[in-house]
Amino acid sequence: MWPDTPVARLFQVAVPIVLAPMAGEASTPELAAAVSNGGGLGSLGAAYSSPDAIRRMIRATRGLTDKPFAVNLFVTTPEAHDPAKVSAARAILAPWRDRYGVPDDPPALSLPDLDAQLTVIVEERPAVFSYAFGALSRDRIAALKQAGIIVVGTATTVPEAIRLEEDGVDAIAAQGAEAGAHRGSFLDAFENSMVGTMALVPAMVDRVRVPVIAAGGIMDGRGIAAALMLGATGVQLGTAFLACPECGASAAWKKTLLDQRADSTEITRAFSGRPARGIRNRFMAEIGVRQRELPAFPVLNSLTRGIRGAAAKQGDPEALSLWAGQGAPLARQLPAAELLRTLIDETSKRLDEGFQG
Amino acid sequence: MWPDTPVARLFQVAVPIVLAPMAGEASTPELAAAVSNGGGLGSLGAAYSSPDAIRRMIRATRGLTDKPFAVNLFVTTPEAHDPAKVSAARAILAPWRDRYGVPDDPPALSLPDLDAQLTVIVEERPAVFSYAFGALSRDRIAALKQAGIIVVGTATTVPEAIRLEEDGVDAIAAQGAEAGAHRGSFLDAFENSMVGTMALVPAMVDRVRVPVIAAGGIMDGRGIAAALMLGATGVQLGTAFLACPECGASAAWKKTLLDQRADSTEITRAFSGRPARGIRNRFMAEIGVRQRELPAFPVLNSLTRGIRGAAAKQGDPEALSLWAGQGAPLARQLPAAELLRTLIDETSKRLDEGFQG
Repeated sequence: MWPDTPVARLFQVAVPIVLAPMAGEASTPELAAAVSNGGGLGSLGAAYSSPDAIRRMIRATRGLTDKPFAVNLFVTTPEAHDPAKVSAARAILAPWRDRYGVPDDPPALSLPDLDAQLTVIVEERPAVFSYAFGALSRDRIAALKQAGIIVVGTATTVPEAIRLEEDGVDAIAAQGAEAGAHRGSFLDAFENSMVGTMALVPAMVDRVRVPVIAAGGIMDGRGIAAALMLGATGVQLGTAFLACPECGASAAWKKTLLDQRADSTEITRAFSGRPARGIRNRFMAEIGVRQRELPAFPVLNSLTRGIRGAAAKQGDPEALSLWAGQGAPLARQLPAAELLRTLIDETSKRLDEGFQG
Repeated sequence: MWPDTPVARLFQVAVPIVLAPMAGEASTPELAAAVSNGGGLGSLGAAYSSPDAIRRMIRATRGLTDKPFAVNLFVTTPEAHDPAKVSAARAILAPWRDRYGVPDDPPALSLPDLDAQLTVIVEERPAVFSYAFGALSRDRIAALKQAGIIVVGTATTVPEAIRLEEDGVDAIAAQGAEAGAHRGSFLDAFENSMVGTMALVPAMVDRVRVPVIAAGGIMDGRGIAAALMLGATGVQLGTAFLACPECGASAAWKKTLLDQRADSTEITRAFSGRPARGIRNRFMAEIGVRQRELPAFPVLNSLTRGIRGAAAKQGDPEALSLWAGQGAPLARQLPAAELLRTLIDETSKRLDEGFQG
């Protein structure tokens, strides 16, 4: 039976289907709880949240499910603050602020303090803690595991996976080049870390002992069955859940996603300063070409937040970060519980029937 | 039984495993015949060959197998000849010519005439004709089919697949972003046509009626089983066969391939003027940054041919076009017949055992 895999046993879930964390508006306790209640592993994308907000998110999710779920953070090493680039970005973004009526607030120069965020994680003890963008120190990993939390790192290459295993993670999410939103690369430039899921998963499985969770381009039972054939024993899906009513993505984002009939995504630094995959729009085209003038993550992310938020409220997709993976053309709009049931049924059928040419 | 798929029935082969054509030195009648004799579909990469040479290749292959095989050509629309760029390229390449003792011959400005190549194909009637880089006119496709030849186009996106089906092809090779050597993109810039196999195949299968052959990142039974789960009913492998003794790739190329332990490929225009994936080396790094100064395919390909050939003879991988896909870390060195048997056995086992977490 396919649900009973090393990943499912590790997380103590009925099926090894993980909701991608999707830090930001898309991530909600309702979506995470729906996936966990359905037998998968829901995730909270908490990277941008303060320690207090993380505690509230975890408790809200606990109010909706007694099943395991994950909390995800970003492990970043911020680049040196460059005031000239911040000034340049504020000028470049001025027409966009004007268009959407957004004030020119000073940017946040960093994410919330990681140690303070981790303190809440250790205190609240979600079943699983996952992270991306970097390597977490062995001490921090040990502290999380000491608290009974399962630790999952994110790798985009085989060397990153080997590093995470050495650091002590319990499982690794293999983020293929197809994946939506931010790239998790941390050992090499992202350009050298764009390995497709089909090539990445078997190469990684051969080189680490911990279970591998495939991510990137997986949208339905065909993709889940394929990932299992490649040697993954779990899968992580984000784009597939983006149009669910429980997902906090804006209506304009969901509508744009559901309109895609072919891959229309690209990797951009335009919204956040860090390479991320989303559906092409006007902001990406106009700001993307000026990326050398702009500050790095998370400063640029903070500078564009008001514009993105206002565009979302106004239902205008042209200035939204329309994060999505290359599986976008296969997105479906279903309640999360129903989508999860469909994914489970499709996968079982695909695997049980064997291959019928 | 997985071998009996629409692709296998179309080609009348025992298993739907296609040898990627690999135009240039790698393609040999011996390799094509070994794959066809083993029950797959061998391919001859004949794009750079004169009509007479194509006839000889086909007849040589017929001398080694009575099974079906494919012949592959490039359908290109050459850019306007730019003498200034040719002069610039000759100057940029001078240190490389000096290093390997290569004369500064004038370049060939085009591939052999496509109509003359196609005339030989129609006369010699290989079982299958496949093409890449562009759309072949409906008249030419009709003429090939009239001669009893099965016609296969190459698509890197869903819109390209729809176009090929409208043109009348019998099957489509879906070239995922992981694939080695030249990108087949022809409707949009290659940067907008880099869809991973995991996302490309199911999206394409949903939009065309002709069978889809998955290509890109497939190296072993895990990859073949995964591609079948995605909805492909055939697979095409190039990198997997590159280290076979029957393959004409140089010893330095094979050795470099077998040394890879992680993805070390990138897309470059440095060798041929057209985007292609190969293992990074010094030539790619030094010439790649100057690509705006260089002429397009096939002029640059001709200008670098002497250097690449001399480097191969001298066993130096630093100036070779080390074409390989992102599956390179999984390359194996086996005789082609044995590799094909292994692939068939691995796939059968993977599919028959169901999924064993």
